[in-house]
Amino acid sequence: MSLLENAAPAAAGDLDSAAFLAKLDAAKSAARVLATTNTAAKDAALEAIAQDLLACVDDIVAANAEDLARGRENGLSTGLLDRLTLTPQRVQGLADAVLDIVGIADPVGESVRGKTLPNGVHLEQVRVPFGVVGAIYEARPNVTVDIAALALKSGNVAVLRGGSAAERTNAVLVAVIQAALTRTGLPAASVQTIDEFGRPGAAALMRARGHVDLLVPRGSAQLIQTVVTESTVPVIETGAGVVHIVLDASAREDWAVDIVRNAKVQRPSVCNAVETLLVHADAAQRLLPPVLGALRAEGVTIHSDERALAIFPDAVPATEEDWETEYMSLDLAVRVVDDLDEAVEHIRRYSTSHTESIVTNDLANADRFLAEVDSAVVMVNASTRFTDGGEFGFGAEVGISTQKLHARGPMGLPELTSTKWLVRGSGQIRG
Amino acid sequence: MSLLENAAPAAAGDLDSAAFLAKLDAAKSAARVLATTNTAAKDAALEAIAQDLLACVDDIVAANAEDLARGRENGLSTGLLDRLTLTPQRVQGLADAVLDIVGIADPVGESVRGKTLPNGVHLEQVRVPFGVVGAIYEARPNVTVDIAALALKSGNVAVLRGGSAAERTNAVLVAVIQAALTRTGLPAASVQTIDEFGRPGAAALMRARGHVDLLVPRGSAQLIQTVVTESTVPVIETGAGVVHIVLDASAREDWAVDIVRNAKVQRPSVCNAVETLLVHADAAQRLLPPVLGALRAEGVTIHSDERALAIFPDAVPATEEDWETEYMSLDLAVRVVDDLDEAVEHIRRYSTSHTESIVTNDLANADRFLAEVDSAVVMVNASTRFTDGGEFGFGAEVGISTQKLHARGPMGLPELTSTKWLVRGSGQIRG
Repeated sequence: MSLLENAAPAAAGDLDSAAFLAKLDAAKSAARVLATTNTAAKDAALEAIAQDLLACVDDIVAANAEDLARGRENGLSTGLLDRLTLTPQRVQGLADAVLDIVGIADPVGESVRGKTLPNGVHLEQVRVPFGVVGAIYEARPNVTVDIAALALKSGNVAVLRGGSAAERTNAVLVAVIQAALTRTGLPAASVQTIDEFGRPGAAALMRARGHVDLLVPRGSAQLIQTVVTESTVPVIETGAGVVHIVLDASAREDWAVDIVRNAKVQRPSVCNAVETLLVHADAAQRLLPPVLGALRAEGVTIHSDERALAIFPDAVPATEEDWETEYMSLDLAVRVVDDLDEAVEHIRRYSTSHTESIVTNDLANADRFLAEVDSAVVMVNASTRFTDGGEFGFGAEVGISTQKLHARGPMGLPELTSTKWLVRGSGQIRG
Repeated sequence: MSLLENAAPAAAGDLDSAAFLAKLDAAKSAARVLATTNTAAKDAALEAIAQDLLACVDDIVAANAEDLARGRENGLSTGLLDRLTLTPQRVQGLADAVLDIVGIADPVGESVRGKTLPNGVHLEQVRVPFGVVGAIYEARPNVTVDIAALALKSGNVAVLRGGSAAERTNAVLVAVIQAALTRTGLPAASVQTIDEFGRPGAAALMRARGHVDLLVPRGSAQLIQTVVTESTVPVIETGAGVVHIVLDASAREDWAVDIVRNAKVQRPSVCNAVETLLVHADAAQRLLPPVLGALRAEGVTIHSDERALAIFPDAVPATEEDWETEYMSLDLAVRVVDDLDEAVEHIRRYSTSHTESIVTNDLANADRFLAEVDSAVVMVNASTRFTDGGEFGFGAEVGISTQKLHARGPMGLPELTSTKWLVRGSGQIRG
């Protein structure tokens, strides 16, 4: 299947197709080498990458300063500029994250299941790398290093489209990584950027079925929606979190206060932060004043339905839009529900199926919530902030999958592998 | 996300959207019931379905006769007519296949992995149904029953688009299944056909992201290509098999003859039948005459490269097209290669990554073949016909995945499930 036939016509016109295809061909060749590279060799390359990131910190920060200056000229938001910024301390963090991945088990070759058939044929399903993994993201140079390192450890080639806002930084990061790969005897093409092809390159990457085995978008809901809609390459959707906490009638007050505050305030801009609080009517009088009082003390704006407003007036009225919103800020929507059914129904309607948690002391309600709420992560009496690859012990994460195919929830190294069946016989034929 | 926004404009114009959406809404409601239905209740429904298929055999065969008559008028090929035909004996086979699924372990609720974090938070990843599984296929009424039964056992709703050629047969089969579901207390909407919406219905199904969790196409390469290209719903690609057998220099003659003959002749029209034979130059003189002689005795047409033709002249010259062709008939392409590298390179270039097998007595070559060939199933000294859900012990199969995401190779019940993380805490927050 030709890449050019698949590329969107508008994009193909602007794309230097020969140069783009040469990169993907080099990626495929590198993938063959990585697929049979042993763990020790991959770990040695990761250690070299961590070392070189630290050795090149001045170059990285200088390139980043160019991106930041251009970003300020272009009026990038404070939040985006912050995400874009690499300080020497943050570069140290990147190197540490790479070293963390050295310590995580290599999933390649793991035997998933197997058996011997009555005729003596032995079946074994083992984990293998996908091959070439693409990533499309925006203004997040840390993702360049995280995905490169996770892909390498799992035997995959990474083809990265990091966006124009971080182009200089990503170019230097990829150059540093490629030099470390070469020094340790692995193909430089194991980690590549296609930023130089601009948007036509991103469009072609999405249509490069047969050249790219998996595509992971990370970033805004709009970017993810575009990748999901436009791609013919298999995509894992990551992302958006309209996350709910339910305070059941039997909820302990101290747990309710601690969990809601932690989930809202600790890092409001991330996808596992809570956005909507649903409170059982029987507990609203008891729980809303301490829980919302603690949030107000932290500067949270409360968007309440009428019943919550009547109990805790230091809030603004909620509209339909509030239930649908991933604020990613110090805002929280609050609604009083008559029972667990109404809470579950609200979650079905508005959740993005990322994470929901219930605070309860009622065992039957806890079990019902775990069974009936269809989200990637469903919790009882814990902060939604625990939905995180690091917290789950996966090391740096590729993203948090909010879809059901292949991976769901925080994605670690096993989620970057496929499987194949090895069948060993001694002349058997089918009867 | 509204279905109508997503539907292809051309299709939306012809579609009775309200009726179509009502079916998908009913599917989603049924999926909630099935997700918490226990194994015994699902097995009881399967037993009722098997019973009713046998009780209604006359209705089924009569409806099938209408489809067959129309098919003959429309000039359907003999092969398609055969696949379309349901005899009383084949209906018995369908009922038996449903009963087989009763005996297979229910994957729902299986604990995949889990651990307790140092802070006491317990994580458990369990299998859950996808929810609503769509299938698009052509003129294969057996697929209607197979997928309905597999979906039901794995807690999923099946929404079936079985194509116009089998419309009457499928309508009766689904009516029989729905009556059995109702009789055993499960929602009739657990198994539905959308055949009455025609092609616009199929197009809308492909764009029904948010309503349908997984779409499985089965049928011609063209149908699969269309579904892969057009769908925004996650798709598992099944299918095409340009399957290779390599005869290594050390191959035993008896195994080579038995395996190649079985793989080519037993059922040439299926995807796990061999299409290309690659023979090591050092063994060509020894192996080609007995292997190809046995095939000629079975009526196989041999399409040979020059070197093979020189050794075994009772053949026609192969062209480039032969290496790319899935014959699905009594034809075999044959090529002599200089070494294992050339064989692996040929497979990389022409294989559809379904199944490849090597006949060898050389351990190092066997290991190399298993490691370097990147196909769903890679075999040593066994017939490629073993790539089959039934042979693997999965019961009836949804299809054989030739892609790498989520499922690879024969798909059984676990492949029809997703997972979710259950997190149980006692007030923990993230530090």
